Amino acid sequence: MNKLGIPKGMNDFSPNKMVKRDYIISIIKGIVAEFGYMPIETPAMEKMETLTGKYGDEGDRLIFKILNSGDFLAKSNFSARTKSNELSKQIVKKALRFDLTVPLARYVVQNQNEITFPFKRYQIQPVWRAERPQKGRFREFYQCDVDVIGTNSLLAEVELIQLVDKVFSSLKLPKITLNINNRKLLEGVVEWLGEKNKFNDIITAIDKLDKMSIEKVSEELKLKNISDEAISKINSITNLTNNDTLTTLRDILKDSEQGKIGLSEIEYIFNKVGKLNLNICFKPTLARGLDYYTGTIFEVVCNSLRIGSILGGGRYDNLAGIFGLKNVSGVGLSFGLDRIFLILEELGLFPENIESFTKLMFVNFGKEGLDKALKYASVLRDEGISTEVYPDNLKLKKQLNYANSKSIPFVALIGSDEITSDTITIKDMNSGKQNSYTLEELINLIK
Amino acid sequence: MNKLGIPKGMNDFSPNKMVKRDYIISIIKGIVAEFGYMPIETPAMEKMETLTGKYGDEGDRLIFKILNSGDFLAKSNFSARTKSNELSKQIVKKALRFDLTVPLARYVVQNQNEITFPFKRYQIQPVWRAERPQKGRFREFYQCDVDVIGTNSLLAEVELIQLVDKVFSSLKLPKITLNINNRKLLEGVVEWLGEKNKFNDIITAIDKLDKMSIEKVSEELKLKNISDEAISKINSITNLTNNDTLTTLRDILKDSEQGKIGLSEIEYIFNKVGKLNLNICFKPTLARGLDYYTGTIFEVVCNSLRIGSILGGGRYDNLAGIFGLKNVSGVGLSFGLDRIFLILEELGLFPENIESFTKLMFVNFGKEGLDKALKYASVLRDEGISTEVYPDNLKLKKQLNYANSKSIPFVALIGSDEITSDTITIKDMNSGKQNSYTLEELINLIK
Repeated sequence: MNKLGIPKGMNDFSPNKMVKRDYIISIIKGIVAEFGYMPIETPAMEKMETLTGKYGDEGDRLIFKILNSGDFLAKSNFSARTKSNELSKQIVKKALRFDLTVPLARYVVQNQNEITFPFKRYQIQPVWRAERPQKGRFREFYQCDVDVIGTNSLLAEVELIQLVDKVFSSLKLPKITLNINNRKLLEGVVEWLGEKNKFNDIITAIDKLDKMSIEKVSEELKLKNISDEAISKINSITNLTNNDTLTTLRDILKDSEQGKIGLSEIEYIFNKVGKLNLNICFKPTLARGLDYYTGTIFEVVCNSLRIGSILGGGRYDNLAGIFGLKNVSGVGLSFGLDRIFLILEELGLFPENIESFTKLMFVNFGKEGLDKALKYASVLRDEGISTEVYPDNLKLKKQLNYANSKSIPFVALIGSDEITSDTITIKDMNSGKQNSYTLEELINLIK
Repeated sequence: MNKLGIPKGMNDFSPNKMVKRDYIISIIKGIVAEFGYMPIETPAMEKMETLTGKYGDEGDRLIFKILNSGDFLAKSNFSARTKSNELSKQIVKKALRFDLTVPLARYVVQNQNEITFPFKRYQIQPVWRAERPQKGRFREFYQCDVDVIGTNSLLAEVELIQLVDKVFSSLKLPKITLNINNRKLLEGVVEWLGEKNKFNDIITAIDKLDKMSIEKVSEELKLKNISDEAISKINSITNLTNNDTLTTLRDILKDSEQGKIGLSEIEYIFNKVGKLNLNICFKPTLARGLDYYTGTIFEVVCNSLRIGSILGGGRYDNLAGIFGLKNVSGVGLSFGLDRIFLILEELGLFPENIESFTKLMFVNFGKEGLDKALKYASVLRDEGISTEVYPDNLKLKKQLNYANSKSIPFVALIGSDEITSDTITIKDMNSGKQNSYTLEELINLIK
């Protein structure tokens, strides 16, 4: 047999990792529910035609394809010269989802007659990408998406920002910033640069300002034949502070209809979000790639760690359009669960004792003590106290080692003395001290 | 474009289904945690060699295979006469998990040096099987497994039965029975029948007693050349009641060492489980297929609905052995989530209002009322009350329709009167009545 293992780029989640990820997810779930978002799940597999062509050529190559079942070659037509991509069309009908966005669009269009719009949904499921694995990038990872579909109202953006603020406050993440911009405003800016036809080149370049110096970005712009004047204009707006930005932009965009709409959308959102715990920052160079965004764009970064954005989102007017449902605008966001996990781990922000699953373990001495332990364990569990009875009558040391390695804080011993006096001796595994209690006292002690 | 849809045998989970499934899962999670079980997750994909040969030939055919990425034919050697199964070995290295049991065995063997035994884990994840879809049988479905690995102690069985009892009590499932038997006892019974060499034929036949009459089963046994004497003996033990069973079996098994061990294991468990809410029934004909079980076998059936078992489980001495780790016994069970869902639905046992996600919706009249609504909504959410502000300033009727179709029980209106008096008018969507409240009164009303 080969060495045991799992496919590369994938992970087992051990209990210690699970409990931490569940902590993050349960906070998100609690808060999105407060805002009236409802959960959905879609199947791991979608039809090939649902996924193909939605992620660009590079994306298409990274989709994991499911081989047809049974005698998949029976109806195929191939020879020794058949190419992989030709054969794959004949022997593959399904593939694993690549993100949660395309499945959402498919779901909304397919169920448009049953759905009440605006449709507020969240979805937390794994996605699969055949990317080259590297640090922090896996071939299977959870996405956590929150979207509202079927309203043009900017209140949807306002609500999502309030929601994001509440999630990160609840996770106690310090020093985070929500950067916000607007795709229409970006169009206005590019008009002002006098380079309307080079929108994509400019956006692609300035999107790198987080990872590259302005000098490097300027070089890249030059290579794309952007004028020196435009480059110097870009330079002038990269360092605006929150207060300057609006004033400067109002001047810059005074001749661009699109730009003015984008700016007024930003202003509306700033005006309505109210007091937030996080820092909200208008960043007119924020682009977030050449995605399907058409209006508001936002992201959250953690200032204390250089780890990239931990959340991204924006408004898309045409997403459902890819499946034929026109004029349904939506806005949504995606939490970067893996990065949030890394930050909480790095900064020690997971709750204390999160890895202690069991609160109390009864040592197994066999005989009558065992029957009492079983009885008490039931009572303690009914009180919500996680309790184990060690299953084997082994040496005490071995049983205590088990309790230690599971970080069980209290160990209970019932010997002949305890049976006579109807008490339980408790060993505090942190201090090493022992004391005797009645069952009732024990419940109070642990609670 | 083809008709929009998902691959056959798979399902979207709409919010109404999600909230019900989450209800079941959250009860199970809460209770397994009380017993000290810890969550793990394994990747959707396993290496082919991990899965192949573990589920029989039929099972192997039902595994969903992942086509290798990129130019998968580049290193393959094929002609127009290559058969599907030959080619598949060249172009497939990974497949989707078929159950959670084999991944658990793989996980335990792979991580044996990090795991503290006995290892108590639960795992709730989807599995995929390319079966012919039919009512209640899907190609993607969740399994929910609870296992303890690395102890021979029957206390593990005792604990699992108590856990099962608590889960089904919490779900308020009426009239359920836990049937229990033991594989060693079955071996003893087959010895007594004088048909030791036909163990598999006999087990396969009597396993059908739930779905077939004893006459049909007897016919099948006859076809397999089981003696008339053995068949009449089988008939004699199918209708024992709980009290008779032990006495009769003690007599039947007095000459079988294996049988006596099996019987004493059953007696130990009956003796230790204590008072249960569910009915526990010793059923000496229970076999649960030709699975990997080696000791205790059990299942739960719901007496009020003929839907098959809603839980199955048992002890397996050799599971980790398939990956080379010997002498590690375990016992586990699997909740039949889909069937439990169907029963709760059928019997109306889901909590009332489970489909009401949002408790209160503010109507959007625009202007100042809106700013107040946004402010109040934040306060209400901080009180744990799920609150929405309707995003668009549409006709009241349209907004109320939204609240209705989302089963939102309270709708809040803030017009000029309410702004002046600093109150909120609440429409009770069930009674249709309207009343005015201060924010504080409103919080108390809804809580």
